[in-house]
Amino acid sequence: MMEGNPILTKPLVQALRSEIRSALAELRQRQQAIGLLALVIASEDPAIQVYLASQRRIAENLGLPVQVVDVGPEVTQAALTSTLTELSASHQVAGIVLELPLAGHLDSEAALSAISGHKDVEGLGPYNLSLLAAGREGEALLAPTPLACLTLAETQVALQGTRVAVIGSGRTVGKPLIWMLLNRGATVTVCTPHTRDLAELLSEVEVIFLAAGKPKLIGPELVRPHHVIIDAGINFVEDRLVGDADAALYPLVRSYSPVPGGVGTLTGLLLFRNYIQALRWGMAHGG
Amino acid sequence: MMEGNPILTKPLVQALRSEIRSALAELRQRQQAIGLLALVIASEDPAIQVYLASQRRIAENLGLPVQVVDVGPEVTQAALTSTLTELSASHQVAGIVLELPLAGHLDSEAALSAISGHKDVEGLGPYNLSLLAAGREGEALLAPTPLACLTLAETQVALQGTRVAVIGSGRTVGKPLIWMLLNRGATVTVCTPHTRDLAELLSEVEVIFLAAGKPKLIGPELVRPHHVIIDAGINFVEDRLVGDADAALYPLVRSYSPVPGGVGTLTGLLLFRNYIQALRWGMAHGG
Repeated sequence: MMEGNPILTKPLVQALRSEIRSALAELRQRQQAIGLLALVIASEDPAIQVYLASQRRIAENLGLPVQVVDVGPEVTQAALTSTLTELSASHQVAGIVLELPLAGHLDSEAALSAISGHKDVEGLGPYNLSLLAAGREGEALLAPTPLACLTLAETQVALQGTRVAVIGSGRTVGKPLIWMLLNRGATVTVCTPHTRDLAELLSEVEVIFLAAGKPKLIGPELVRPHHVIIDAGINFVEDRLVGDADAALYPLVRSYSPVPGGVGTLTGLLLFRNYIQALRWGMAHGG
Repeated sequence: MMEGNPILTKPLVQALRSEIRSALAELRQRQQAIGLLALVIASEDPAIQVYLASQRRIAENLGLPVQVVDVGPEVTQAALTSTLTELSASHQVAGIVLELPLAGHLDSEAALSAISGHKDVEGLGPYNLSLLAAGREGEALLAPTPLACLTLAETQVALQGTRVAVIGSGRTVGKPLIWMLLNRGATVTVCTPHTRDLAELLSEVEVIFLAAGKPKLIGPELVRPHHVIIDAGINFVEDRLVGDADAALYPLVRSYSPVPGGVGTLTGLLLFRNYIQALRWGMAHGG
């Protein structure tokens, strides 16, 4: 019987961790300040506590200082903007994470645009988005979740010239992922909830990226033995973390990145690799 | 014999022109300043003279004032940024066009980000791009060329749930077009120069958008009788304007938007419709 293989993240995690550690050691050796990462919270969303715990744990493990800046779920847009502007100008702060989602009355686009592009380690603000559009990824901080998706897929296939599908085209994962895939020469089909004949369409692609945030978005009936499944879904079902793929499809495909244990194991480290990059740019810009 | 139909722009042009004229008449009746549109040039590219002539002609026809700000092809990045920042702050200037391409030594991303998002009537800067990513098109100024592509396609098909292909994923047309199509629920396949089996892939879609900037990018061998072809290519071959489609395919498809006479007839008017929107926002923001 055919059996799908889980895509192993351990080698990638180890490589990323050692890359970050070496970079940090080098910075310390040259007696350069390593700054701090500001984690800004303006929300009571319980998911944020999960992200926060994970980010603090990784930071501690790497020996990088973080500072939680909780401005409270009642903060005004103006006060949030002014906090983000101050952090962007601070010489102590080398990176800023605005934990999403924000409280409902806040405008996340306006908030993201108040973060200096060189400190936007989530890579979601307009500055990094427009560099991504221009194909100038080397000058940008790239959003960790889509970048983790790419990294996992590239362990299975060469993306250039390969047909892939992205299901879900949201602001934080799907849309930047599509541009990153195009920058690598993949032929990308993007599916929405209105897509017809999904099974037939998917049969033509090699890699399926799931980024819709819907549990059981695709199940066994939609996959084929040649498929590579990269699941970026983060859903809580009865307090259990699940992805967008129905786990019943795992045995039916060539390989898959499961949730938990896939994309999410890389995103935190990619965020801190962005932090190292931000630190270098901060020094180069004298900020 | 089957015969492809050119998609007529005349009714769209008339509707746009009358929409802009009514809006202007209303603003004038309320004795509101109509400002001016600044056309900024930092290049010797001959194509820019073509755009400029067209923008001036449309402005004159509508009775809208433009001001050409030619900073010369030798301008420094800092001086260009400062010009754009000043124009963005000026109460007289309600809209700004940075004519692309810039001279080779200039960074267009940096320059675009110096234009106030509310005056960026080309809709290409990071502010409007990130609103587009968020699906908040109603708050954005939308790039005229991709919007013209959509408008023409919508005269032929309902985009929601329809399979379309975009060939070319550049910064100014392809990438924003993809996001606009996704925001409308189309199932979008994006092709790059690495795409294999293009004919088979294209046979599955209803609409083909051409945005690669390559003459004869597709010819008769790649199209089918059910295809709608929207050509956004602007190429000069022996001083003659041609699109990305080989005109020999026109008789073989359901309908097509030719070059010249298609997308380009709408972009100028869509730019001035953005100007009207910018003018309204300028008043609302007291700027």
